[in-house]
Amino acid sequence: MIPEADTAQSGRAPGGRTGRQRARTRAALVSAAQTLLAQRRINVTIREITETADVGFGSFFNHFTSKEELFDEAIRVTLARHSEVLDSLTRGIDDPARVLALGIRTTGRLQREQPEMARVFLHQGTRLLLDDTGLTSRARANLAAGVKSGRFVAPPDVEFALMAILGALLGVVQFLDAHPEADAGASADQLAEGVLASLGVEPSEARRIAREPLPPAFES
Amino acid sequence: MIPEADTAQSGRAPGGRTGRQRARTRAALVSAAQTLLAQRRINVTIREITETADVGFGSFFNHFTSKEELFDEAIRVTLARHSEVLDSLTRGIDDPARVLALGIRTTGRLQREQPEMARVFLHQGTRLLLDDTGLTSRARANLAAGVKSGRFVAPPDVEFALMAILGALLGVVQFLDAHPEADAGASADQLAEGVLASLGVEPSEARRIAREPLPPAFES
Repeated sequence: MIPEADTAQSGRAPGGRTGRQRARTRAALVSAAQTLLAQRRINVTIREITETADVGFGSFFNHFTSKEELFDEAIRVTLARHSEVLDSLTRGIDDPARVLALGIRTTGRLQREQPEMARVFLHQGTRLLLDDTGLTSRARANLAAGVKSGRFVAPPDVEFALMAILGALLGVVQFLDAHPEADAGASADQLAEGVLASLGVEPSEARRIAREPLPPAFES
Repeated sequence: MIPEADTAQSGRAPGGRTGRQRARTRAALVSAAQTLLAQRRINVTIREITETADVGFGSFFNHFTSKEELFDEAIRVTLARHSEVLDSLTRGIDDPARVLALGIRTTGRLQREQPEMARVFLHQGTRLLLDDTGLTSRARANLAAGVKSGRFVAPPDVEFALMAILGALLGVVQFLDAHPEADAGASADQLAEGVLASLGVEPSEARRIAREPLPPAFES
């Protein structure tokens, strides 16, 4: 699914000029909300939002009924975008351990590429992990596949393991946000190795998987 | 250090009746803020806070200059209390692996005993981990001791490992908050085992340490 904001930016929205204008306005509002979330400025008025978006005050209500609805949508769009990136990276990889490692390693590196996006996640905190987004669904399915095949020594509960792993990942993203000087690649790889070891993958193999070459875009 | 709120409740505040009254008011405000934080109700007015605390509106400003200052204090007091509990539990234990496991295992169980307190932590999200409270200081010192002695295979950075571990713990506390039917003891023990394994403790030893008897108050 392509988020509406992207559709608008690429200028392929349906409905002629009015439809395109409408989609542009909506995209501007979502983008403004992402910026405000990243800056932890959620105690703003609707007027401040429309000013940040550079759209008319009244147009807000053509798209959203409340500030909360807009912020929820901004988070959904941000998550969907991240989820699509991770999905395209891991497509075609069968080993759940490799899929998991790749997700962790590239997410840490993405914090450096898109710190504003990462801050939207951090703002949500661990509540984010409860939303059944594409991201958590895919991570859950991968974890369940690994447990079922015996690749991961069975934790008592897939849902529990998912929350522990994603919580650790959020903790590391927060660390990278607070420490711009830290080596994001080394940190993310170390987390991937630790997570695989905690799931019962033999330590030397966990280390090897966590150091395999990455897709060219993520090589530091 | 005993938080002022506790001092007030035990009636041993200095300064005679006026001093005791003052301390009681302050404690009531902090307690109200803890309740509101646990309910995620931070968009309240100062009047709503003083009504929740059952104190006069004007008395707020005898203690705090803003809502934010009160909420910060409420989080500080909550963290200090949790930190003291964990500290008393691990006093006299030399093995960093045992100290770490005990901290994780009892924190998971504490979520069940004090879900409101746990929600104050969850509300803060991973930002909480950046505050240099007694809790993170002690966890950091324990981790550093374990790395130095070789008990833990050295991660690239103690600060990074701290954030990953505490992030995982927050993720599990969020899981337990969302799943009242889940076995908190089993989840916390599993996390402790996984964290020790991720730090290089041999898997069977990690499992043994994560299942040692707990202090009587925490046996389920």
